[in-house]
Amino acid sequence: MRRTINIGLVGYGFMGRAHSTAYRQVCPFFRPGLKPVMKAICGRNEAAVRQAADSLGWQTYETSWEQLVNREDIDLIDICTPGGSHRDIAVAAAEAGKHVFCEKPLANSLGEAKEMLAAVEAAGVKHMVNFNYRRVPAVQLAKQLIDEGAIGEIRHWRAVYLQDWIVDPQFPLVWRLRREEAGSGALGDIGAHIVDLARFLVGEITDVVGMSATFIKERPLPIDMMGLTAAAGAQRGKVTVDDGAAFLAHFDKGAIGTFEATRFATGRKNYQRFEINGSRGSLVFNLERMNELQFYSLDDAPHFQGFRTVLVTESVHPYVSAWWPPGHGLGYEHTFTHAVADLLNALAKDRMPQPDFAEGVRVQAVLEAVEESWAQKKWVQVKE
Amino acid sequence: MRRTINIGLVGYGFMGRAHSTAYRQVCPFFRPGLKPVMKAICGRNEAAVRQAADSLGWQTYETSWEQLVNREDIDLIDICTPGGSHRDIAVAAAEAGKHVFCEKPLANSLGEAKEMLAAVEAAGVKHMVNFNYRRVPAVQLAKQLIDEGAIGEIRHWRAVYLQDWIVDPQFPLVWRLRREEAGSGALGDIGAHIVDLARFLVGEITDVVGMSATFIKERPLPIDMMGLTAAAGAQRGKVTVDDGAAFLAHFDKGAIGTFEATRFATGRKNYQRFEINGSRGSLVFNLERMNELQFYSLDDAPHFQGFRTVLVTESVHPYVSAWWPPGHGLGYEHTFTHAVADLLNALAKDRMPQPDFAEGVRVQAVLEAVEESWAQKKWVQVKE
Amino acid sequence: MRRTINIGLVGYGFMGRAHSTAYRQVCPFFRPGLKPVMKAICGRNEAAVRQAADSLGWQTYETSWEQLVNREDIDLIDICTPGGSHRDIAVAAAEAGKHVFCEKPLANSLGEAKEMLAAVEAAGVKHMVNFNYRRVPAVQLAKQLIDEGAIGEIRHWRAVYLQDWIVDPQFPLVWRLRREEAGSGALGDIGAHIVDLARFLVGEITDVVGMSATFIKERPLPIDMMGLTAAAGAQRGKVTVDDGAAFLAHFDKGAIGTFEATRFATGRKNYQRFEINGSRGSLVFNLERMNELQFYSLDDAPHFQGFRTVLVTESVHPYVSAWWPPGHGLGYEHTFTHAVADLLNALAKDRMPQPDFAEGVRVQAVLEAVEESWAQKKWVQVKE
Amino acid sequence: MRRTINIGLVGYGFMGRAHSTAYRQVCPFFRPGLKPVMKAICGRNEAAVRQAADSLGWQTYETSWEQLVNREDIDLIDICTPGGSHRDIAVAAAEAGKHVFCEKPLANSLGEAKEMLAAVEAAGVKHMVNFNYRRVPAVQLAKQLIDEGAIGEIRHWRAVYLQDWIVDPQFPLVWRLRREEAGSGALGDIGAHIVDLARFLVGEITDVVGMSATFIKERPLPIDMMGLTAAAGAQRGKVTVDDGAAFLAHFDKGAIGTFEATRFATGRKNYQRFEINGSRGSLVFNLERMNELQFYSLDDAPHFQGFRTVLVTESVHPYVSAWWPPGHGLGYEHTFTHAVADLLNALAKDRMPQPDFAEGVRVQAVLEAVEESWAQKKWVQVKE
Repeated sequence: MRRTINIGLVGYGFMGRAHSTAYRQVCPFFRPGLKPVMKAICGRNEAAVRQAADSLGWQTYETSWEQLVNREDIDLIDICTPGGSHRDIAVAAAEAGKHVFCEKPLANSLGEAKEMLAAVEAAGVKHMVNFNYRRVPAVQLAKQLIDEGAIGEIRHWRAVYLQDWIVDPQFPLVWRLRREEAGSGALGDIGAHIVDLARFLVGEITDVVGMSATFIKERPLPIDMMGLTAAAGAQRGKVTVDDGAAFLAHFDKGAIGTFEATRFATGRKNYQRFEINGSRGSLVFNLERMNELQFYSLDDAPHFQGFRTVLVTESVHPYVSAWWPPGHGLGYEHTFTHAVADLLNALAKDRMPQPDFAEGVRVQAVLEAVEESWAQKKWVQVKE
Repeated sequence: MRRTINIGLVGYGFMGRAHSTAYRQVCPFFRPGLKPVMKAICGRNEAAVRQAADSLGWQTYETSWEQLVNREDIDLIDICTPGGSHRDIAVAAAEAGKHVFCEKPLANSLGEAKEMLAAVEAAGVKHMVNFNYRRVPAVQLAKQLIDEGAIGEIRHWRAVYLQDWIVDPQFPLVWRLRREEAGSGALGDIGAHIVDLARFLVGEITDVVGMSATFIKERPLPIDMMGLTAAAGAQRGKVTVDDGAAFLAHFDKGAIGTFEATRFATGRKNYQRFEINGSRGSLVFNLERMNELQFYSLDDAPHFQGFRTVLVTESVHPYVSAWWPPGHGLGYEHTFTHAVADLLNALAKDRMPQPDFAEGVRVQAVLEAVEESWAQKKWVQVKE
Repeated sequence: MRRTINIGLVGYGFMGRAHSTAYRQVCPFFRPGLKPVMKAICGRNEAAVRQAADSLGWQTYETSWEQLVNREDIDLIDICTPGGSHRDIAVAAAEAGKHVFCEKPLANSLGEAKEMLAAVEAAGVKHMVNFNYRRVPAVQLAKQLIDEGAIGEIRHWRAVYLQDWIVDPQFPLVWRLRREEAGSGALGDIGAHIVDLARFLVGEITDVVGMSATFIKERPLPIDMMGLTAAAGAQRGKVTVDDGAAFLAHFDKGAIGTFEATRFATGRKNYQRFEINGSRGSLVFNLERMNELQFYSLDDAPHFQGFRTVLVTESVHPYVSAWWPPGHGLGYEHTFTHAVADLLNALAKDRMPQPDFAEGVRVQAVLEAVEESWAQKKWVQVKE
Repeated sequence: MRRTINIGLVGYGFMGRAHSTAYRQVCPFFRPGLKPVMKAICGRNEAAVRQAADSLGWQTYETSWEQLVNREDIDLIDICTPGGSHRDIAVAAAEAGKHVFCEKPLANSLGEAKEMLAAVEAAGVKHMVNFNYRRVPAVQLAKQLIDEGAIGEIRHWRAVYLQDWIVDPQFPLVWRLRREEAGSGALGDIGAHIVDLARFLVGEITDVVGMSATFIKERPLPIDMMGLTAAAGAQRGKVTVDDGAAFLAHFDKGAIGTFEATRFATGRKNYQRFEINGSRGSLVFNLERMNELQFYSLDDAPHFQGFRTVLVTESVHPYVSAWWPPGHGLGYEHTFTHAVADLLNALAKDRMPQPDFAEGVRVQAVLEAVEESWAQKKWVQVKE
């Protein structure tokens, strides 16, 4: 008989829906060691959170996260709110002895992230930050190939994360465009993902030099600030985060890297692409074609070397045997189901899930170094 | 308050899992007019069906479909068994006054398909055959563009459905390779999908000439005949269906078409590709990149005409607004959720869902004409 | 010291320009055993042919091909005229003891093609038909891989040749749309290429069933019938060739094939694509990306099997070492230079160049079987 | 009657062959205002240069460039030598009153480049630096679309130029890997191209921060230092240029840019890719598919926006009408023919060809700023 774990989720927006799907889908496909019980969802607007509980499948709801983290019937707090509230919720949850699963970026600053890490470590609870793109089967396959030595010694990392949802100057000033809530713009939101993947696949980043830009300085205030689809009102406010950012980096083992994150790449919707060049081969991934991985190998005969497009949908590929036959691709939300499966299996075995808050802290340190570098117009060491 | 409908599902294999997911996912994302209740699942092996009920989320189970179709608490019978049993189950379900939702192909022969249609019509129940690929957002977008006149008068339909899962001669003789259960090989299994899409997008097929081939005549008998992953034993049996088939066709409004379905296209996993050329533009779809549709338009300025790759993940695209932000792609199973959403909404409004059994009969008539054409080595009219 | 050979070219249109480029380029890059001397070009319009001689680099010109083939200083006649005149010129050239290099298709009918073959054999001269796409490096690489056994036993050939230059109903009735000059439409013009490639790569075609269609029955007569860019006049005439055609085929060693050629594939410019599926791998080529070949191999480890895109620009690839460094692609006209290099090297060694007229005859036999099949609405054997 | 111009070419390696082809091909296809006469080619090794003159089609040869530039029958000096000799040859040619056509990069340092510019301006001769990739039809089409306002205000430039020809540590120390001859490594060789294209398409670069890396510090000395295919000997020497480099930049009108050039991108042969994001659309080019340009436009209807792949082979496209029908692609060497056509037409009209030496100086200034930035580990202004 499988044991259960009671989940309390904070936030019912985009991320709340994605996490809810993961809890619903994880058992039929993965049969994890712990079965999640969707105990309670939490949000400030009672009408909205009640409706979310009903449509997303949560047994109860709360309108105050303080109340949620202190409920005795909750074992794990899942944080799906904007970054500005991560620290307070996570620290309180840890102090209440709950495990904590937190959306990325871990926090809005390196200082906050470190406080969170200290809190979970002091409390001795388990903790995980949800860099969900590590859980794309193609990304796991990339990791596997690197670990097998298939591309040799890594020379180059080259990543972009391109979106275009704020190209229109009339797009309103939603919370993601305000520093006090989001902490950072494209850099912290989507740049954080490629920093995490770089660390996961290549290694530690030692020093950086970067720049950022805000192309549209003022935008209409939103009428409804709930989500990305908010309507624009007549009043205007100041954009206080970056629209795009780029940086150069060195890795600890000698590779060099380039990174770019922007919300102004017209036509790019969720174009997270990385290319890794090694001494024996190369790998390329593009999230807009997330079921594919490209792989070039110098071990092939010279007359037929070329970038293979591996359709990462075979039962030999990571996570795939739980799903469908070859060629029947997965989508965005599956990354969350994979994350939750891994989380639950780690908890079932009393192991620390990965990436944990220490990993989240290191990502934050890189982002902060990039911002400092741009402020000082020079290369900056990433803090330990 | 939404009304509910009680579902009884026959079959817990590949398709049973896909349909179960659809029933679980349809409410959080689509809020259909009728809320499905996963009442009972049915299969012959009690241990297996009990486990399936538990893991897939069904309240009860049955080991005899006869019992299931006669349960008073069931409103709709969903048939996910091999084609050889569709007729009997569907006819019995109709006679018991249940709505019927049936996996494709509708039956193993045109005669059986017609019996099924007669039964549901006589009973006055609703019926739908699950050609799920109509529900890919990119396919719906193709339909919309055609209806808008974006590609003008259609000249050419060109479709292949390529897989490779039986290339290995040691792959065992599973049920899909035996005529008595599967009715047909690649032609009826995957060829049926591209015939349905051709009819959906271009129109009626009037006459055909085709061929089929069985490259590997004998295969090891499977030790476990439950699924595609069965192990091969020492004894051998005869393959009684086609490994691949191709045919030429005329459409009622003047277009010409080519079709090919095979399980011997090494390297192709689920490569269902169609291209439609019209007098003003063209469309291309490939299921292995199911979130994309290619579109060429003569209405573009001459110096920048080209095939666009539309990432069909915008809220303006069919079905997409229910899901995630732009660029966050969907996967295979979403087509089932879409089908169930459409089915439930039709039932809620007391309308006939589409494609209904009459559509399934017409697909069967085309497949039968292809087989007859190959037997006679000449062009054959598709029967009305 | 390299010997020389004097060339006489008939035709100064599209093909005449392409062949002239080949004679100019072949020596600097290939240093063939025989050095071609661009002796004389021939065309009916004296002003035009004089200008062509000057701009294309021919020493002299003629206005009558009869005169050209009888000039004593000519060693080889290169025929670049429409198919309707191939027979007469080739037979006369052979009788005058000249080698003959003839554009494809060899003739407008199987009968004419056989007469040509008889004439060159009787005269004992060398002969070659210019199926230039055999000379794309990627196509040669495909041949090499097949010969090495890289894809195993061939099961499927799947080829289309798609263009769109007559989609506009106002496009004039140029010579390529009139049976008396062109012999056939899309089938004979571009279909001939994919038939040649199928025979080159897979083997002999034994029997076929096909169809053809003429979507636009009448077109404006051209004001200038010289070339493809002719302007349309007010008078109209009947289109007497097919706009598109498709057929199914069997190969002598058990493979099955599909072929389609059309000038009505809106958006496709020179989209000659073939895919070959074998028991160990697959190959894909598309002329619109002629520097690439895709190759899938079951010999790869299961977790990284995928279609490789081989950039066929390495010095180990056929023809490439004569040209540029890796990644510096070739274009359309290079196929002619390769053909001429192979022709001259064969002549230098007193060998028969390939494909010779016997090959051209066999292509013609397939095309004729397709037409007969459509006339009779049934499968037809290809004549020996 | 067209006038003629006598060409003297210095260098018979890779670039000498490419330029020779351009002079041979330009007249049949472009009929430029001035007809080039291939008067003399120059190289130090008499046997080799005599053979080059013969095979490439030059009337005479010289073994000293000093002699060549002073020959009275030469009107234009074309410099195809390594960058280390550009200054001396160009200055002498200008002083001798010859027009100068010089391969890129203009010189090995900004100082040398400025001396060259001063010399040609003092002499009043015409001058052009051969950034040949401006002459790819797809690149010209990109320029045209930008000038038409098709992508609006430019926000992002993102370019890489990736090769892999020295990934093998045993590849010998050819001249391109030694600072005294090549001036710079990947940065100056291929990085120069993307700097030129950025300036051509986006505008002036104002400030930069960059890095470079030399992954393999020592290599075997080559036995034959003539070309890229040199064999490696037993002795080793120090690599004195970068293997790869990357930098960030600002443009004068507000766009931000990223650049990377490397010879260590395993599997990338000549992968020069740029992407430009503007407020109304985007453009993408990749030299490995040089006949294509991708274009995204917000002016398309929302339901079919997508990146078009424009096959830049239509007669409405730049340079294409001189060549072949649609879909019959061009190759690498055509860029040289286009450059020479433009050069000759400018000279015929007594206009300054573009890009002239002033443009070459500005590219050099950017490269020098990148190197300075890396030396100082901070952002650096590009010198006027």
